Amino acid sequence: MSIVDELESEVRSYCRAWPTTFQEAQGAVLTDISGKEYTDFFSGAGTLNYGHNNELLKKPLIDYLTSNGVTHGLDMTTAAKTEFLEVFRSRILAPRGLPYKVQFPGPTGTNAVEAALKLVRKVSGRPNVVAFTNAFHGMSLGSLALTGNEDKRAGAGVPLGHVLRVPYDGFAEGVDGLALLDRTLSDGGGGCDRPGAVVVETVQGEGGVNVARVEWLRELSDLCRRHELLLVVDDIQMGCGRTGAFFSFEEAGIVPDVVCLSKSISGYGLPMALVLLRPELDVWRPGEHNGTFRGNNLAFVTGAAALREYWSDSTLEKSTGDLAEEVHERLTGLAASLRTEVSVRGRGLVQGLRFAHAPTAAAVGRRAFELGLLVETSGPRDEVLKLLPPLTIPPATLDAGLATLERAVRELA
Amino acid sequence: MSIVDELESEVRSYCRAWPTTFQEAQGAVLTDISGKEYTDFFSGAGTLNYGHNNELLKKPLIDYLTSNGVTHGLDMTTAAKTEFLEVFRSRILAPRGLPYKVQFPGPTGTNAVEAALKLVRKVSGRPNVVAFTNAFHGMSLGSLALTGNEDKRAGAGVPLGHVLRVPYDGFAEGVDGLALLDRTLSDGGGGCDRPGAVVVETVQGEGGVNVARVEWLRELSDLCRRHELLLVVDDIQMGCGRTGAFFSFEEAGIVPDVVCLSKSISGYGLPMALVLLRPELDVWRPGEHNGTFRGNNLAFVTGAAALREYWSDSTLEKSTGDLAEEVHERLTGLAASLRTEVSVRGRGLVQGLRFAHAPTAAAVGRRAFELGLLVETSGPRDEVLKLLPPLTIPPATLDAGLATLERAVRELA
Amino acid sequence: MSIVDELESEVRSYCRAWPTTFQEAQGAVLTDISGKEYTDFFSGAGTLNYGHNNELLKKPLIDYLTSNGVTHGLDMTTAAKTEFLEVFRSRILAPRGLPYKVQFPGPTGTNAVEAALKLVRKVSGRPNVVAFTNAFHGMSLGSLALTGNEDKRAGAGVPLGHVLRVPYDGFAEGVDGLALLDRTLSDGGGGCDRPGAVVVETVQGEGGVNVARVEWLRELSDLCRRHELLLVVDDIQMGCGRTGAFFSFEEAGIVPDVVCLSKSISGYGLPMALVLLRPELDVWRPGEHNGTFRGNNLAFVTGAAALREYWSDSTLEKSTGDLAEEVHERLTGLAASLRTEVSVRGRGLVQGLRFAHAPTAAAVGRRAFELGLLVETSGPRDEVLKLLPPLTIPPATLDAGLATLERAVRELA
Amino acid sequence: MSIVDELESEVRSYCRAWPTTFQEAQGAVLTDISGKEYTDFFSGAGTLNYGHNNELLKKPLIDYLTSNGVTHGLDMTTAAKTEFLEVFRSRILAPRGLPYKVQFPGPTGTNAVEAALKLVRKVSGRPNVVAFTNAFHGMSLGSLALTGNEDKRAGAGVPLGHVLRVPYDGFAEGVDGLALLDRTLSDGGGGCDRPGAVVVETVQGEGGVNVARVEWLRELSDLCRRHELLLVVDDIQMGCGRTGAFFSFEEAGIVPDVVCLSKSISGYGLPMALVLLRPELDVWRPGEHNGTFRGNNLAFVTGAAALREYWSDSTLEKSTGDLAEEVHERLTGLAASLRTEVSVRGRGLVQGLRFAHAPTAAAVGRRAFELGLLVETSGPRDEVLKLLPPLTIPPATLDAGLATLERAVRELA
Repeated sequence: MSIVDELESEVRSYCRAWPTTFQEAQGAVLTDISGKEYTDFFSGAGTLNYGHNNELLKKPLIDYLTSNGVTHGLDMTTAAKTEFLEVFRSRILAPRGLPYKVQFPGPTGTNAVEAALKLVRKVSGRPNVVAFTNAFHGMSLGSLALTGNEDKRAGAGVPLGHVLRVPYDGFAEGVDGLALLDRTLSDGGGGCDRPGAVVVETVQGEGGVNVARVEWLRELSDLCRRHELLLVVDDIQMGCGRTGAFFSFEEAGIVPDVVCLSKSISGYGLPMALVLLRPELDVWRPGEHNGTFRGNNLAFVTGAAALREYWSDSTLEKSTGDLAEEVHERLTGLAASLRTEVSVRGRGLVQGLRFAHAPTAAAVGRRAFELGLLVETSGPRDEVLKLLPPLTIPPATLDAGLATLERAVRELA
Repeated sequence: MSIVDELESEVRSYCRAWPTTFQEAQGAVLTDISGKEYTDFFSGAGTLNYGHNNELLKKPLIDYLTSNGVTHGLDMTTAAKTEFLEVFRSRILAPRGLPYKVQFPGPTGTNAVEAALKLVRKVSGRPNVVAFTNAFHGMSLGSLALTGNEDKRAGAGVPLGHVLRVPYDGFAEGVDGLALLDRTLSDGGGGCDRPGAVVVETVQGEGGVNVARVEWLRELSDLCRRHELLLVVDDIQMGCGRTGAFFSFEEAGIVPDVVCLSKSISGYGLPMALVLLRPELDVWRPGEHNGTFRGNNLAFVTGAAALREYWSDSTLEKSTGDLAEEVHERLTGLAASLRTEVSVRGRGLVQGLRFAHAPTAAAVGRRAFELGLLVETSGPRDEVLKLLPPLTIPPATLDAGLATLERAVRELA
Repeated sequence: MSIVDELESEVRSYCRAWPTTFQEAQGAVLTDISGKEYTDFFSGAGTLNYGHNNELLKKPLIDYLTSNGVTHGLDMTTAAKTEFLEVFRSRILAPRGLPYKVQFPGPTGTNAVEAALKLVRKVSGRPNVVAFTNAFHGMSLGSLALTGNEDKRAGAGVPLGHVLRVPYDGFAEGVDGLALLDRTLSDGGGGCDRPGAVVVETVQGEGGVNVARVEWLRELSDLCRRHELLLVVDDIQMGCGRTGAFFSFEEAGIVPDVVCLSKSISGYGLPMALVLLRPELDVWRPGEHNGTFRGNNLAFVTGAAALREYWSDSTLEKSTGDLAEEVHERLTGLAASLRTEVSVRGRGLVQGLRFAHAPTAAAVGRRAFELGLLVETSGPRDEVLKLLPPLTIPPATLDAGLATLERAVRELA
Repeated sequence: MSIVDELESEVRSYCRAWPTTFQEAQGAVLTDISGKEYTDFFSGAGTLNYGHNNELLKKPLIDYLTSNGVTHGLDMTTAAKTEFLEVFRSRILAPRGLPYKVQFPGPTGTNAVEAALKLVRKVSGRPNVVAFTNAFHGMSLGSLALTGNEDKRAGAGVPLGHVLRVPYDGFAEGVDGLALLDRTLSDGGGGCDRPGAVVVETVQGEGGVNVARVEWLRELSDLCRRHELLLVVDDIQMGCGRTGAFFSFEEAGIVPDVVCLSKSISGYGLPMALVLLRPELDVWRPGEHNGTFRGNNLAFVTGAAALREYWSDSTLEKSTGDLAEEVHERLTGLAASLRTEVSVRGRGLVQGLRFAHAPTAAAVGRRAFELGLLVETSGPRDEVLKLLPPLTIPPATLDAGLATLERAVRELA
């Protein structure tokens, strides 16, 4: 019996699906203590878009540590933070003409959502916010109230309120979610406390790789303007290039009022999160939202390096598009060749295989692990195999991983 | 105008009180970009109990990075996590006979509290929890509901419920908080939904360095047993040796059902948090609470090193006691020598100077900064100067810092 | 300036629309202090289905008072209550094979709904209940949470929760409300705390005379069975014969788990309310819901008389059908003859004229008042003229009232 | 098995304690169907301050019915309402110099409290209100949130929030409730959403006949002024002369901002309720709170008659004082003569006997019933026998009732 089994709480989860002890990692490959290698189609749930221990980021990190750079800074001004802000402005905001101010909340996605919620509630004066079916925004009580998954919600132990739930694009046949929202807000008898904001993911990763059409996103943006709702995009998993462009909403040509980033923003797996907000929304009082680790300066160092290395031109965006196309084609071909009902869904380098027979998805995941591939499931019944390879995965590694996946699927579906 | 002023949200706070750009830090000293040095009586709000860039921790950290150790692991089993658990058991749990299981929530204090709340609500089947006046437990909605500060609460933008508020030791004259709680729970007409747990800090750091007497803590523990309430100690700021012993509740001889740790647990300012829970409370379903950065392996590496270096014997605990005594004496002498009303409060190496004229505290903080000393204020009106030097501060540095503080106080109070 | 204008709160409403002082009333006619008569198409908002001061009920009432019968009895057993229960069983429950037990809540509709909510929450163990857009269930906080109207909800001053709002039959184009509910409950990611019950009106009177199709009601009943939801019909305004049968749900052939009655149950305008519940749901503890006026014995006396007089055979039900047909035809003809867009809606003797140009409805109501007819508006924008004549209105009086209405409409629409 | 046992819900309560069928009632005496008479020390839980079927009120009631006066009027202006308002102003408001406007909510106490809560929340803009331990304000969700009794609260099936609970005068030793409230509101770290109002009973009837000292009431009133809290007195059970003066707060010399009345305001046991509010608080929109039975005109008729008959001079107030003195003396003598611990509490004609051994109270109540006396219990453990005789009880009847009570107590305590 390992010390993890003995000492760690029953809440642990990934270590159950992938029962080994990992030791090293480089790029798209993890190695366990026995020396076995695993191709990574998981990327730390979207945190490692540039792969593990990326050399281009590792060097500045070690240099910073060696020079006794400030490690922990809360929101004191540090050289590392200043540098990060400069690079974020020059590589991300300025080229896209985005007007945002930057908030550093606690270094987790859920904390970014908590901060965004406080802000839009303060600005609008309305506690209620719109969230969508199968949304995932985090596990602390504010963000969990927006999350759709029934089991995760039940963990709260308290009723979760102040949310108007609206069907996401494609949720239910015969139900146009945005038509319902529009009518609810127009009718006067819709029966909700009037919301002040909408929080949306452009692709619902945890929810089952549900992709909102760009027209739907545009209509949502228009609806927000018509009804004076602030639009918040939770780009925690889909941002930082996952769908191609740096922000996942760029393709739809919309400009949200607030954007949440985390996961791959540090580029190295280090905890960090950002809230971007239109300047006119910046009504925060000093310290009105804070957190001890909001100044993780090591993350600023690797984050700045990642932006410089990968977002100074469009090379990464293009290669993501190319890899995405390959993945999508391979999966589509695979699905078409199966006897059982499997469908493909995704945008950019988040692609899903949805199994009509839900348990197959997890079985394939387990088999893939045996064969040396890490890939996780998502969706309300864990019925979708979700592929999140590093954006920087070498084509040969990607091919090999897909071949492994195809084998596992063919064995079981 | 700096890029911070220009681009960072108005929510920023510490950078306003300490208007410079910090670059390097070592032990108890920070250096800004102009080369000016600052003695640190702040320790990252209690996160840097072993000082900045502690050499004993830095080396294993750089070695780990260099060897491509897994950086980001969610709750996959990694060699670094296994090692941390071994050391935590051998250095902390076993010597104290503590039976706890260990949960890794998201790597922030507030997330540890959110996890603890979910757990006690699930175990007890009761949404309501007891929290105290002037408590601080974090800023996400679950933990914020427990937090006492009116301004911070107002930031929520939604009503904060499911909390039974009880006066902390010494809160109001003529009011015995535990007698009130006892009666409320006994009477049948107390008018609260019956709570399932109590969450308490042994010393309220953010609340103004309010120290609960050990007899009060014991009475609270007894009351919890009598009324079948789970006892949760939030040891995020006061644990990891701040009051002397590793856990701040050891002095009272009580054993909480659940303990929250964060801040100094990684020892290096890296984001990390733990929830300790009695094994019989471990009713979590896998993944019922989770978070992307709950496997910050760099923090495991430095955390294990810190426990090995500082908690294999009682050296640190003893030296903390010695330093605490000196600080307390110096402050007491200082207070006695002033014309205005100033009182001293604290336990171990968290000591506070409370100014009857509240604005003086912040003024002294500003003057101290000019003189090269970092010290922050706390309390509902920021009326308490809170001293949190690293536990490893060299005596000479401590003396010098105290001298600077005395000078600033004498100039203003 | 009258004493009402001077002393009564600004909350008063009907007295503004109908600015006179009423003195006497008999059948379908009210008389003001100047002797002017008004035909009543309002019936105390559905409370006076048998007309004002119905002679058949007045006599037993005065006899009871004269004999010093117990007037106020809480839930003590009285001869009057016993008698009411006997008659309610023999005339209403037994002939329809309905198994209900009877609860006497406080003597108002809202209190019946509050009681029903407590019960279904207790039985199901689930705080959440389904309610529909444009529902009206009352104005105390429990029932108001179910009510759809935005203005009425805003009066709460606190967020109203624990309700899953679903689009009513016909609420929004492109939105099948029951399909949405079904999917939400099936999907696992629907994002609501799982509800334990559904509360529905078969016709939404206050909501604008929105009529649910009987197939829709049947599908709702089936859905409740599939998802183990308790079905509560709020028959406060539509019961007691308003739509023809005693209960408005009889036409759909469904049997709710809980039924709320009030308004016309006393038959004389005296405050009274009932909750009917399947025996297996009767898990109340004694006194778990109570209220000072739940034993309004005068209402029991007139209520028993009304049931005996009007529900011993099907005469009233048939005549209601005949009158309803006439009203519907007259309104349909009227609407067809107008230049502006007006539509007819209703079932039984609740019929509505919906004006596309909302303010016309109120203008017609004011003009009708001048012409000696009382008729009110409903709907989220007060865009529907709602006709609720007494079921016992003489045909000639009905004709005359309709003629007055036609004149007012023609003048204005 | 009676039809009540068979058909009425398990929620019934008084009929269990007093297992007979009552038929007639006159003054302070009820008669059951067997002809057995019961002296009434219960008065419909304070609804029948002028006794049953009071002849002075019965005549105008029957005259009104006979003349076809409007019975049910919602808030239409009627001759009966106008008359009631005139008398209420001339007999109650004017002589006391009270400036109130009058609101007619639904005809129950709980509805008056719901209305008052909406109003103070709207005026103050604050959802939170202060309520006291062992308060009783009703059973619908808004008023139930203020109610202290644990069992009644549990019936809600949802968490009850937006209330700051404060210890009532004498609730717990070592706890000064108003000092706690004052400090909580002054400190900034009190941990509550700032309340906008206080709701208080001057004597807690249901809570166990807990009497607040007049100095305590005055201090509460002062505290409200200092902290800008609206003061609401729930005078539903204690008003209408129960403690001597018409309003129970007159003795303390305070003038609340809002007053709730119900129970005895109609004087005849007919459902009715009032909210009195300072004119500057009358910010209601028309219809913002309403209810079908808010115009129970029969109650206006008897209510006006009661005010004219009993409140045109101080005769009743004086006789209440005399009777109260007698009751208090008799009970005090009784308590002193017992072997077990029994204490006396009360003000005016609400007097309680508190049994240290709680079950004795109910046993005495049952024995008294056998002996022909109706008296109920109250308090969180039903440990207090609560005497509420009609204010108009003839001295001889009172004496006889007290003798019966003494006998029952002596047999059992």
